Amino acid sequence: MTEILKAKPLIKEIYSGIKAEIAEGDNPKLVVILIGEDPAAMYYVQNLKKKGAKKGIEVENPVYNTDITQKQLIDIIKGLNSDPEVHGVMLQKPLPKHLDEDEIVMTIDPDKDVDGFHPMNMGNLLLNRDGFLPSTPAACLEMMKFYDIETSGKNIVVLGRSDIVGKPLANLLLRKDSTGNATVTICHSRTKDLAKHTKEADIIIAAIGVANFLTADMVKDNAILIDVGVNQIEDAEKGYRYVGDIDYEACFEKASAITPVPGGVGSVTTAMLLKNVIKAFKLAQK
Amino acid sequence: MTEILKAKPLIKEIYSGIKAEIAEGDNPKLVVILIGEDPAAMYYVQNLKKKGAKKGIEVENPVYNTDITQKQLIDIIKGLNSDPEVHGVMLQKPLPKHLDEDEIVMTIDPDKDVDGFHPMNMGNLLLNRDGFLPSTPAACLEMMKFYDIETSGKNIVVLGRSDIVGKPLANLLLRKDSTGNATVTICHSRTKDLAKHTKEADIIIAAIGVANFLTADMVKDNAILIDVGVNQIEDAEKGYRYVGDIDYEACFEKASAITPVPGGVGSVTTAMLLKNVIKAFKLAQK
Repeated sequence: MTEILKAKPLIKEIYSGIKAEIAEGDNPKLVVILIGEDPAAMYYVQNLKKKGAKKGIEVENPVYNTDITQKQLIDIIKGLNSDPEVHGVMLQKPLPKHLDEDEIVMTIDPDKDVDGFHPMNMGNLLLNRDGFLPSTPAACLEMMKFYDIETSGKNIVVLGRSDIVGKPLANLLLRKDSTGNATVTICHSRTKDLAKHTKEADIIIAAIGVANFLTADMVKDNAILIDVGVNQIEDAEKGYRYVGDIDYEACFEKASAITPVPGGVGSVTTAMLLKNVIKAFKLAQK
Repeated sequence: MTEILKAKPLIKEIYSGIKAEIAEGDNPKLVVILIGEDPAAMYYVQNLKKKGAKKGIEVENPVYNTDITQKQLIDIIKGLNSDPEVHGVMLQKPLPKHLDEDEIVMTIDPDKDVDGFHPMNMGNLLLNRDGFLPSTPAACLEMMKFYDIETSGKNIVVLGRSDIVGKPLANLLLRKDSTGNATVTICHSRTKDLAKHTKEADIIIAAIGVANFLTADMVKDNAILIDVGVNQIEDAEKGYRYVGDIDYEACFEKASAITPVPGGVGSVTTAMLLKNVIKAFKLAQK
């Protein structure tokens, strides 16, 4: 029987952990900067705000005009860095083209960088030092931990080499700890004979952003399939729906365990982000 | 015919590049801190000093007693950080056990961290931002570039997951550039059926520190073998000699190209380090 690795029970556990961490009078606060009113970004932040409020985390979302200058935005971030009442700072992307994203990310205090995208936090990740892990790789690890998926000595294929998922995830899976010790292969657009690699994998983590990319013929029997992708596709009835990078229906029978989309890894990321806000809050109290 | 990937012509090229970068009156300076008079470390630094002097780079090597305190050492590093005449700062390891190596490495200004071991530089590496690359991974890339070894789409197996070689190297080989775009598998002590992985590899980079670990039966025909290891073994005539992680004699016929030990990757690292000193010097002039 294929096990469905649902996010819900894990999310519940993470949130009860967060609640337990917040004491009377604590006021952890995350500021999410939005540049322009992108509907998807607005929706995401409103959702984050609602979830945060329920757990005792304030989420503030100032919205700036798209004609904001580099200097203005940097000054805003510097203000948040030095504000003791703000514990986490993040930036909704993509930014307007006239802004230098790299310089802006670099301005965020690494101790408030709950997204984990600052080079300092990426370096901490690579070197197994304490820091903020980006939420998606962290969600993958939490998922595997929650469902007792052994990684040690396993062949894990990571599909995708992005800076925010594939690469950090690969480094995490190599760590000498309970969610590490894996033999990791990173495949991507330049990989030749990709199926040859995936067919050897005990665990496949797909993070390439192509709907239903991984098909049943690319997967060995009893593989564990972790799907990071969330892709919008047309749907005759509903207009559109979301699917992952893994062809769920086709791979289901072959897999020993599989994450659904929606309701899988993607759903855990918000919880991981809010967990980072608590971590930042605790750090600020020290 | 197996091509022997010798360090010498590459080193010559790097050094002539370094010489061309130094103008009249320039005085790039590296400070290598030694704690205690470890003979191997002293030998290494003397050699570095000699090589640096030839190329116009001053190498200073203050030696401190092994009873130096954490605070004393940190103050020394802070002094070097703020000294405009010092461009590179590095620390000979291992440190005495009473010192907190992590905190000490963190004290080095990332802009003077020519070793590339600071989390900031490791993060820059992962995110493909400009920074200092650790010399051994950088030497591997330079070697492959110099000998026109194509990495794009190749299956590269990295043996070893150390913070200073295996992990940074794997990340570099994934970059979207002329020494990247490889499909990378990282194998290590927990890998099961390691030979299965190595036998599929177009290129194997061995960095595990075990003498003659990779044997001919683990290698496919025409593989390219890059040996990072430098291991001292007993020798009936000379007392001891150095060999790599790859059984050179046994693998030679099978490989299409192979780096010798000594005279291979290890010999390039000093040149890469001195190149980083020049980079730090230029950075300081900005």
